Amino acid sequence: MSFQLLQQKILDKKSPIVAGLDGRIEYVPSHIREASYAKCGNNIDGACDALLTFNKGLIDVFADTVPAVKPQAAYYENLGHKGVETLQKTIDYAKSKSLYVIADIKRGDIGATASAYAEGWLGHTTIENNPHRTFDADCVTLNGYMGRDAIMPFLDFCKNEHKTAFILVRTSNKSASELQDLIMADGRPLYRVMGELVEQWGQGTTDQSGYTALGAVVGATNVEQMIDLRASLKETFFLVPGYGAQGGTAEDVKHAFHDGGRGAIINSSRGLMCAWQKTGNNGTDYADATRNAVLEMQTELLKHIQF
Amino acid sequence: MSFQLLQQKILDKKSPIVAGLDGRIEYVPSHIREASYAKCGNNIDGACDALLTFNKGLIDVFADTVPAVKPQAAYYENLGHKGVETLQKTIDYAKSKSLYVIADIKRGDIGATASAYAEGWLGHTTIENNPHRTFDADCVTLNGYMGRDAIMPFLDFCKNEHKTAFILVRTSNKSASELQDLIMADGRPLYRVMGELVEQWGQGTTDQSGYTALGAVVGATNVEQMIDLRASLKETFFLVPGYGAQGGTAEDVKHAFHDGGRGAIINSSRGLMCAWQKTGNNGTDYADATRNAVLEMQTELLKHIQF
Repeated sequence: MSFQLLQQKILDKKSPIVAGLDGRIEYVPSHIREASYAKCGNNIDGACDALLTFNKGLIDVFADTVPAVKPQAAYYENLGHKGVETLQKTIDYAKSKSLYVIADIKRGDIGATASAYAEGWLGHTTIENNPHRTFDADCVTLNGYMGRDAIMPFLDFCKNEHKTAFILVRTSNKSASELQDLIMADGRPLYRVMGELVEQWGQGTTDQSGYTALGAVVGATNVEQMIDLRASLKETFFLVPGYGAQGGTAEDVKHAFHDGGRGAIINSSRGLMCAWQKTGNNGTDYADATRNAVLEMQTELLKHIQF
Repeated sequence: MSFQLLQQKILDKKSPIVAGLDGRIEYVPSHIREASYAKCGNNIDGACDALLTFNKGLIDVFADTVPAVKPQAAYYENLGHKGVETLQKTIDYAKSKSLYVIADIKRGDIGATASAYAEGWLGHTTIENNPHRTFDADCVTLNGYMGRDAIMPFLDFCKNEHKTAFILVRTSNKSASELQDLIMADGRPLYRVMGELVEQWGQGTTDQSGYTALGAVVGATNVEQMIDLRASLKETFFLVPGYGAQGGTAEDVKHAFHDGGRGAIINSSRGLMCAWQKTGNNGTDYADATRNAVLEMQTELLKHIQF
């Protein structure tokens, strides 16, 4: 099983949405922050407590409405090891609610080092012959600049434990073009070279979903490139950032999908977790605000994507 | 100040060596492991205690002999948040011994996310207007596949707090060639494009050392490419992996340097921290074994690099 589990969750909920969990303290409603500071102090402990409380509340909403969450490691590392503990607890809670967890770590290293990352994030580490699980996400994001050496140790866990990984191909940010759009001597843009490598590296892991265990990150902000990549990569699942605030529309992201709502998932982070900032109630209604934002996004996507 | 502090430490010790701290439990001598398991249990707590004890012992040796250490984040994340706490404590201890700390994290993300990483690893995070420091390394490694958006938030701390970063240009692993050696339509290999971007991104941060705050990772395993890059990048400091086990020799890595032992530092990880495995004493003499390995490496390098 590679992306079959995620695909099934998407189809069951008719919701091709992954909700980002960017654990930034400013995104947490003040009533949660104040309660946590009162309990743990106005410091890193208090911030971690507030983030976890908020994440759990959001995950309760997402459990009903979306198939997957994507915690972004940067926001937790921002708070040091206690932040990383909060990330672990967030992953545990999301998994307990049957959400598919994509740890957005964008790691890329080689050999024994890549194995160490893969063990920690997807599999298990071994201490004196005993296995220990820590982050144990369903999926990670990776950077392939170092080539297959950075990917294969993760693929081992994909094969043996039904995990998956998304590799950066064409990202949604402005300066992505500095490298990714460069044209090779053979006429291909670099992002397509990377995309084709991703599909090649994944060969042998295709399951009933029709996709290999290695997906591609393809931003919503460049429709022509998305169309180009979707045409080239027939067995590669897409993770699509850049919807909403960055400018990608439902009309744009429909090109990431194969027929029947297959082969892609669209990310929204602040659009969902910060929805409370637009209702004028100081975040006391954050759960309702987030639920409404998810339903609005889902309705908009389903206008353009046939399930 | 960009690389001036590191350059000065290298010149003071006549030792262009950065000692990798790959925190893998198998690399820790058994007498340390057993003591830690007896104290904390044969589990993640025990493994973390053993790693920290070993790291501190190694750092005491390195404090006399090398200017810098490079803990590799993967091996600590391998043990979850407790491993990350061990990494923080390792960084703290190395800094207390005046070693220059390069956190080998190879992060690469954009915008607010890159800022979150930069705050956590080089600068400080802010909770309700109060600053908090966590990892606080002197330097990090980064991946530039997403372009300048992934680099500039780190450069802010480089400018304001005298920190530095090394960006992956031409790595030492076998599959690096899959992407990095591709030839562009304009005839340049991709690694040189990346190298030239690194020097360009760093403009405006050159200090008395003659280098910008953004260095380049250039592997020891491809001498021609190293010569090409050293000729192209006049203001870029090089971090050189691949010496020793991977095949790079002192004769090879001399090409990374400018005159007078300037502009580069050579990494050795297992060659130093696992030196005890070759003496037949089960690691009870690990400090002496590591000290001898450093001196041997230094002697070898100084045959080819004029200080």
